[in-house]
Amino acid sequence: MIKITFPDNSVREYDSGITGIEIAKSISNNLAKEVLSITVNGDIQDLTRTITTDSSIKLHTWDDKEGKHAFWHSSAHLMAEAIEAIYPGVKLAIGPSIESGFYYDLDMPEGTTVTDKDLPAIEKKMIELARLKNSYTREDITKAEALNYFENKGDQYKTELISDLEDGTITLYKQGNFTDLCRGPHLPNTGYIKAVKLLSIAGAYWRGNEKNKQLTRIYGISFPKQKMLEEHMILLEEAKKRDHRKIGKELDLFTFSQRVGQGLPLWLPKGAMLRERLENFLKRVQKEHGYLPVITPHIGNKELYVTSGHYAKYGADSFQPINTPAEGEEFLLKPMNCPHHCEIFKARPKSYKDLPVRYAEFGTVYRYEQSGELHGLTRVRGFTQDDAHIFCRPDQLKDEFKKVIDIVLYIFKTLNFENFVTQISLRDQVNREKYIGSDENWEKAENAIIEATSEKGLETVVEYGEAAFYGPKLDFMVKDALGRSWQLGTIQVDYNLPERFELEYVGSDDQKHRPIMIHRAPFGSMERFVAVLIEHTAGKFPLWLNPDQAVILPISEKYNDYANKVADMLSKEDVRVIVDSRNEKIGKKIRDNELMKIPYLLIVGEQEENSQSVSVRKQGDGDKGTMSIGEFASHIQEEVKKLIEVKEN
Amino acid sequence: MIKITFPDNSVREYDSGITGIEIAKSISNNLAKEVLSITVNGDIQDLTRTITTDSSIKLHTWDDKEGKHAFWHSSAHLMAEAIEAIYPGVKLAIGPSIESGFYYDLDMPEGTTVTDKDLPAIEKKMIELARLKNSYTREDITKAEALNYFENKGDQYKTELISDLEDGTITLYKQGNFTDLCRGPHLPNTGYIKAVKLLSIAGAYWRGNEKNKQLTRIYGISFPKQKMLEEHMILLEEAKKRDHRKIGKELDLFTFSQRVGQGLPLWLPKGAMLRERLENFLKRVQKEHGYLPVITPHIGNKELYVTSGHYAKYGADSFQPINTPAEGEEFLLKPMNCPHHCEIFKARPKSYKDLPVRYAEFGTVYRYEQSGELHGLTRVRGFTQDDAHIFCRPDQLKDEFKKVIDIVLYIFKTLNFENFVTQISLRDQVNREKYIGSDENWEKAENAIIEATSEKGLETVVEYGEAAFYGPKLDFMVKDALGRSWQLGTIQVDYNLPERFELEYVGSDDQKHRPIMIHRAPFGSMERFVAVLIEHTAGKFPLWLNPDQAVILPISEKYNDYANKVADMLSKEDVRVIVDSRNEKIGKKIRDNELMKIPYLLIVGEQEENSQSVSVRKQGDGDKGTMSIGEFASHIQEEVKKLIEVKEN
Repeated sequence: MIKITFPDNSVREYDSGITGIEIAKSISNNLAKEVLSITVNGDIQDLTRTITTDSSIKLHTWDDKEGKHAFWHSSAHLMAEAIEAIYPGVKLAIGPSIESGFYYDLDMPEGTTVTDKDLPAIEKKMIELARLKNSYTREDITKAEALNYFENKGDQYKTELISDLEDGTITLYKQGNFTDLCRGPHLPNTGYIKAVKLLSIAGAYWRGNEKNKQLTRIYGISFPKQKMLEEHMILLEEAKKRDHRKIGKELDLFTFSQRVGQGLPLWLPKGAMLRERLENFLKRVQKEHGYLPVITPHIGNKELYVTSGHYAKYGADSFQPINTPAEGEEFLLKPMNCPHHCEIFKARPKSYKDLPVRYAEFGTVYRYEQSGELHGLTRVRGFTQDDAHIFCRPDQLKDEFKKVIDIVLYIFKTLNFENFVTQISLRDQVNREKYIGSDENWEKAENAIIEATSEKGLETVVEYGEAAFYGPKLDFMVKDALGRSWQLGTIQVDYNLPERFELEYVGSDDQKHRPIMIHRAPFGSMERFVAVLIEHTAGKFPLWLNPDQAVILPISEKYNDYANKVADMLSKEDVRVIVDSRNEKIGKKIRDNELMKIPYLLIVGEQEENSQSVSVRKQGDGDKGTMSIGEFASHIQEEVKKLIEVKEN
Repeated sequence: MIKITFPDNSVREYDSGITGIEIAKSISNNLAKEVLSITVNGDIQDLTRTITTDSSIKLHTWDDKEGKHAFWHSSAHLMAEAIEAIYPGVKLAIGPSIESGFYYDLDMPEGTTVTDKDLPAIEKKMIELARLKNSYTREDITKAEALNYFENKGDQYKTELISDLEDGTITLYKQGNFTDLCRGPHLPNTGYIKAVKLLSIAGAYWRGNEKNKQLTRIYGISFPKQKMLEEHMILLEEAKKRDHRKIGKELDLFTFSQRVGQGLPLWLPKGAMLRERLENFLKRVQKEHGYLPVITPHIGNKELYVTSGHYAKYGADSFQPINTPAEGEEFLLKPMNCPHHCEIFKARPKSYKDLPVRYAEFGTVYRYEQSGELHGLTRVRGFTQDDAHIFCRPDQLKDEFKKVIDIVLYIFKTLNFENFVTQISLRDQVNREKYIGSDENWEKAENAIIEATSEKGLETVVEYGEAAFYGPKLDFMVKDALGRSWQLGTIQVDYNLPERFELEYVGSDDQKHRPIMIHRAPFGSMERFVAVLIEHTAGKFPLWLNPDQAVILPISEKYNDYANKVADMLSKEDVRVIVDSRNEKIGKKIRDNELMKIPYLLIVGEQEENSQSVSVRKQGDGDKGTMSIGEFASHIQEEVKKLIEVKEN
């Protein structure tokens, strides 16, 4: 008999040789139907592999990323099988699961191309093969055998991959007539895959290197139920409408220029105003919470990053050093603000009475990403963190952590991200050699986070092994209006940088002590946050945030003067207002400005001019009647006040 | 007879062979006493050189930089003569005039060193030699003769300099027993030099290269009157007290870190608050004037600067390109914001109705400076420009220029820089091949500036040949409280970048036209401006700008609670206030906080707590009596309002 320990620390005994699917069945038939893969002692495996020693396990369903991963990875193999059946001679490169679905890179037979029109036939073949319920079987062979197999098959990409592997056991997975080089894990059989949609075709260089051959990449997604696919397709349709790149262009918020460089956003006036308003909002909140602003340069001497350890860890994959034309100095674009803030902490001696100090900076940082990875404002090469670093004494850690949680919750509330989950990332329970700092400090820090979140009443998920090497952290994942998860705010505890920078304060005992550092960024970055906000609100920003709160539409050019007068009066009352004085029909003006998602449209003509008033239309809410100019200004001011103030209580 | 044209375009006739000093004498004996050098047809010369053809001339006195240059350059030669007399065998490197005085780099004889103690003896010798009224005489010889002379003298530095010169005539200057390789010009004789002060000794590498020998550099200054030297020494003493590096440290405004890199300021909280307040002030003014904010990255693809022409012109002397770890891209740290703003202009099609557009950005730029050139916040490697670019039609140029002048004047007035001069920099009147753009455009632009400044009633100095190669400009030089001049704001007209970036708008004629660009930065940079503001105010910033407007001083720890309560109440009234709750005597607290230059000190003890009041001391103005908390808040609000508002009218 072997002992199996479950995630809740309960233990059950089973015969040696039991499989994951059998364990699931021993709990309930329903679970057995839903389970997709299993983690055994930290290793994700097939449900059909036997377990022969005492083990800690976790069963994964569709709700876990490990479950989806096995499902989509098996679907990629299924797609490859279907494609081999339809296009004999196709050569296969790699076919992984991704965040949402899977893809396979193919070298199509000479003279053959796949287009969108061909995808339904592949989908049909996949479903046909899935219904055969062929098992995914795992086979360990030697490297020589593996090479031999794929050389015979004539698949040069797999041969190349195998050649690069170390000598030893190579794993193959087979289902039906298809064999692939693969580490797994996979579903028990193809029958799990009930619904498939192939989404798009793209070009992709072999191994991501533009000097290599361009292959054909087919993206797809699959589900255990047809209804789930249908829901997903509706979501995709809605997501397309809310794509921040599309809305960012429509609302003139930001742009990119090839000449400036890919992944480097240029904020247009409306976007810059929106971002500035968000920054001012955060600055106000931070000031109220005792943060101090600092400003640091966007480069640092290489030495700074050698000290911080970033150069050794990330130097080779980063933007390369900047040399000076004389004097032989080397600088790096800053990938984070923390080393600069450590130097500011060091600039003046500190006493225990000075702590905590909280340095805040909207610091723009630069990190190299491959061009293929870039995506609108969510994956960029330069971004501005809403960054702050708190330097505190050990006895202040929990309190400071709670105060940061307060800020994050207040911000999420004010911006209508009411739906979020928090994840506490702790050390791996077993392998502890990869973490720096004493066990005692780690326990203090982990307990501080656990207690702080519990005292703040947060529902948290604890993930072991997900901590950074320098300390545990708390992540906030918000759900947007479409139910999609976005990782935003992070709070991290750090023992490493204070050590490396030899930060000190003089304690009440007159001895030198090392402070603890907290990194925190409620938004993560302004770029990412604005992207999420756009997709969450579909561009209909809260009234207090919108660059333009109202647009005045004169019904003909005769009333442009009155419109400008109204605009001046409203501006004096701090209402952000523009005038659409184009010589267009009023109907077209209304339509155009509704597309620009301006919250209020104020129509003015003879009647309004005579009564010194405006006819008010609210975006998505229709006609609100006629108001005097003063009434409308108060109306806006009240609404803004309500949006911000209600949240503060 | 030859015709001599004066700067006011008046013409007089003289015999051929007349000298500058004789021309001066022909006007007045007083002028002849004051004149120090002369510009003849654009070439600065000795007053004793003969003029043999029709010429345009300008006579220079102490009030012109050309006059001072000759005076100080002659003083450097005089110092060298004195040093040769005292230290036989000294070898001479270079000895120029500088912005304020002169220096000479010396290779002292083996075993000899010069220290501060030796300077009075050198000064004495200089005055002794000056009284001999030895003439500075110019001699043209061949390169071979020059080499021969300095080889015989054993002066290897001069020999090296001569070897690098092209073959042809070499100029020597002699006075008394001293001969130097020199282009001149010089004073007629040493008798002009009445007062000398040698200021400091420093090390300097030969030719600025650290691989070469380190020489001894002696700095000095000299004047035509003893009284001027005395005044200068008082000014130096006062300037030392106001040195922004000293005050910046005392007031905790900024710091530098070797590990971050020299010339890269780190703004500490108080400095960041000051800067942010200045930026917000400018943002408000710019918003009122129709500027639109934009935000751009701190790097740009090399291609961007190849397009702008900066790479060809400055690439080799700049921070070197940043390579990517893959994909072979090259980026540059941005040395200016204009190319990015051109790309923003290009991002959307523009019509004549859209112009002018005014893009504003507090854009941080990076320019390489040799470490020896760096100086506090006035000469740095990274700085934030209060930058904006206006794109307008030709018919809008003058009006836009006037609007920019309005902004600059308003800003100078609000910040108490009432004393300034403006310089219009136009094309050289003769050599026009170095300027780009059509004659017609240049004339339009030059006239626009001349008319705009005259319509705004500015007193201007016109300098021909000082325009940038891409357009004319207007510079503002403010005088600080010590009468020192600082170049701050610049307004430049640019035809070049719109051409290079192929910027276009569709005119009312439906044809494509090229806009004109105006570059403008009222402060120049935040770093430089803050430095000037510190030296101008000696750190006593205007009340509306000071990071802390008041500090509350409890007379003992017993009243700390009341002090904190007062602070809370004042904060709610938008008064920026801190509490000095240290356990120190009230006398020491008052002294310490006066040194921190906080405008108001509020002393609280039993009496104040009982009457819910504060005892008010104003910085530099003593006791202002007791006020209720509300009264004090109103008092501050009124004072701030007056400081900002009065200036607006």
